[in-house]
Amino acid sequence: MPHGLEGYRGLALKALINIGAGIGDTIRIKKSSGTIYEGILVPRFEYGDPECIVLKLKNGYNIGLKINDADVVEKLGEGSKLTYKAQPTPKTVLNLPKVPIIGTGGTIASRVDYRTGAVTPIFTTGDLYSMVPELGEIANVETKVLFNVFSEDMTPKHWIKIAEEIASQFGNNIQGVVVAHGTDTMGYTAAALSFALQALPVPVVLVGSQRSSDRPSSDAAFNLIGAVIAAVHAPFGEVAVAMHKNLSDDEVLIHRGTRVRKCHTSRRDAFKSINADPLGIVKNRVYRQISSFFKPRNSSNSPKINPVFEEKAVLVKYYPGFNPEIIEKLLDMGYRGVILEGTGLGHVGSVCIKAIERARDMGVFIGMTSQCIWGRVNMDVYYTGRDLQRAGVTPLEDMLAETAVVKLMWVLAQTDNIEEIKKLMLTNIAGEFSHRLSYRWSA
Amino acid sequence: MPHGLEGYRGLALKALINIGAGIGDTIRIKKSSGTIYEGILVPRFEYGDPECIVLKLKNGYNIGLKINDADVVEKLGEGSKLTYKAQPTPKTVLNLPKVPIIGTGGTIASRVDYRTGAVTPIFTTGDLYSMVPELGEIANVETKVLFNVFSEDMTPKHWIKIAEEIASQFGNNIQGVVVAHGTDTMGYTAAALSFALQALPVPVVLVGSQRSSDRPSSDAAFNLIGAVIAAVHAPFGEVAVAMHKNLSDDEVLIHRGTRVRKCHTSRRDAFKSINADPLGIVKNRVYRQISSFFKPRNSSNSPKINPVFEEKAVLVKYYPGFNPEIIEKLLDMGYRGVILEGTGLGHVGSVCIKAIERARDMGVFIGMTSQCIWGRVNMDVYYTGRDLQRAGVTPLEDMLAETAVVKLMWVLAQTDNIEEIKKLMLTNIAGEFSHRLSYRWSA
Repeated sequence: MPHGLEGYRGLALKALINIGAGIGDTIRIKKSSGTIYEGILVPRFEYGDPECIVLKLKNGYNIGLKINDADVVEKLGEGSKLTYKAQPTPKTVLNLPKVPIIGTGGTIASRVDYRTGAVTPIFTTGDLYSMVPELGEIANVETKVLFNVFSEDMTPKHWIKIAEEIASQFGNNIQGVVVAHGTDTMGYTAAALSFALQALPVPVVLVGSQRSSDRPSSDAAFNLIGAVIAAVHAPFGEVAVAMHKNLSDDEVLIHRGTRVRKCHTSRRDAFKSINADPLGIVKNRVYRQISSFFKPRNSSNSPKINPVFEEKAVLVKYYPGFNPEIIEKLLDMGYRGVILEGTGLGHVGSVCIKAIERARDMGVFIGMTSQCIWGRVNMDVYYTGRDLQRAGVTPLEDMLAETAVVKLMWVLAQTDNIEEIKKLMLTNIAGEFSHRLSYRWSA
Repeated sequence: MPHGLEGYRGLALKALINIGAGIGDTIRIKKSSGTIYEGILVPRFEYGDPECIVLKLKNGYNIGLKINDADVVEKLGEGSKLTYKAQPTPKTVLNLPKVPIIGTGGTIASRVDYRTGAVTPIFTTGDLYSMVPELGEIANVETKVLFNVFSEDMTPKHWIKIAEEIASQFGNNIQGVVVAHGTDTMGYTAAALSFALQALPVPVVLVGSQRSSDRPSSDAAFNLIGAVIAAVHAPFGEVAVAMHKNLSDDEVLIHRGTRVRKCHTSRRDAFKSINADPLGIVKNRVYRQISSFFKPRNSSNSPKINPVFEEKAVLVKYYPGFNPEIIEKLLDMGYRGVILEGTGLGHVGSVCIKAIERARDMGVFIGMTSQCIWGRVNMDVYYTGRDLQRAGVTPLEDMLAETAVVKLMWVLAQTDNIEEIKKLMLTNIAGEFSHRLSYRWSA
């Protein structure tokens, strides 16, 4: 397998091997229909059929061509490497508000080298100005690559490092912080930072992209611009996530870190605020606040930096046929807290009661969220819900299950006292839930 | 605690006890503002503040009144029991198409006795015609209460009984079957029946309600009418779910059983078709097909009745900090299949690789779905996804995690052969997933 062609298969791979083609070479494909395409061979690292050959055409767009036996594939020339020419920071930028950009990995922080197929971090400041020159009109950005890990490999240990890096920036007369992050677990990290970093002097805005920054359809630049604008102009001192509002390049939503969830595997508008309005929106390079409830930014705030997480918290999703012995095993493994993702208003089968009572008797916290995602748990409606509460389950209002398990890790690191744990879980620390209205029509 | 007042608390409960009030009694509340309300005391079994007293007013609406110390609560009279007068099946109905309605429990199949606060099944045929007289214009319904369990207590054993009951009806010259079901796990049951009952002669339509049938805001009657119309008129021979499309009483969506998910804890439009169009819609009592792909109903079909489920399948949701030892414990517990609910395009942290390889070596099936809910897993994009595939993970396209674990229970009951299991999991049996387009633009 020639290096760089790992993503290709079938007839596409065979044709490329036949002509000795490598990534970056100029290729001509004459389809049996007579149409001719010329372009630079790029590695397959995205969606679509691996039996397509993907060429970057002269107009900059990528095209995927399904190869048949009747097609003619030729190599026209050896590849020239596509590079980004790093720019020095423009002088005019130095007077703009300072916004550090912290790279942690993920699609937004990477580019593909078309010669080698390798994914490398883009985040030198010079790289960034060359790729997203608009940033030079908005802020004096300075990049720091903290680490470069895939989003799904992020752990509470990484959250701590990110929190510490952000905290170390607060003294530097900055206007806001941007964190570039893989999208898969960006919601979890945003929730973690929301608890770890409180009373913020400036906004902390996480940003990702669903398509890598060297693809014409990439959302990286647009999201990044939106994130930097929010970091500079948003009135809140909270942790937020900046991502495309819809499929076109016109609006970036700014979601509260404890309320945001990735709700599509691939679309650019995958991120949604759940059970809450977004904090704000960036349109035509203008930030507008949407939610009227927020903790205001204040440069004289003394931030509360508390990046500690206890990993002995576990998320368990219920389904019919669920065996309560699983809960017993988790207790045996030493877990100190369990977030149940129950059905509907917050239920699990009554077969689970015994295991839950054992957890309660061991001083293990059991919180209830709903796998419905939207809406609020309410364990007072049916007697089964009341039975679960008697057995020791704490209903967690309209908190996301993902946020709940992150919060529990943070809470368990604050105290060993079960009553204190319950109290903290039901204290609204970072907008992670809202209380039920105390009065409403019952009909 | 007087019987029936279990749902009340605080000042509301105190005031009711003081005047010796019971459920069904006529109560007058004079608010400190001077406003006077009179109505029948109903039990608290729904949303809202338990310190509200809920009265059924003369106009039929319920009102919840928050009680303060300054309010005057009086008992005007002993309660008369609210009853539904059972009607005999109207004679004209007998010529209409036959639709059995099978009651399994849940809100739709229950009413609250205002005297005792007890929840009782409504599903005698006479009850049904008296509550939803419109049914008498659509079909000759006949009810059967199979059992009466809370939705969250449904297990694969219940799925089997429901499937057998449905199958026993096929010989009876019926036009369709309706199953009344609690909403919490209705999606799981619909998926289970979709695999257990194939080549259906008529539609099988599950229906639930988010608010119980004796509340003015109940969606029970409207959903039930929609379900019966779909059972009579829909062109498909598949398992479906009928629920409100939106918040007003105008449309009922008919979702494919393998593609539907409860996405809100309490709203009437909680059910959504995911990654697929709904099968159809009922509006103004007319059924209209939406999806052009379906298995047509055919009275000469010989249904394939195969209601078997192996409970040694487990659903595991991944999150940062997830401990792969949990997978090891599940293997030790004898699980024969694991559905992972991974992040994004179908990822779990690389710390899980070792446990997954052990599962593969033990002949345990490991399937990947996405916690994003919407979209398709694609484990060819990043090398981490390819690593997981090499370790033995099977990507499950755009299948819902909930449907995947139900399908796995069914597949594991069909065969012990791991290659056969993989093949069945990737065979589209009941519209549970769609294949990726084989050709698409890569940009």
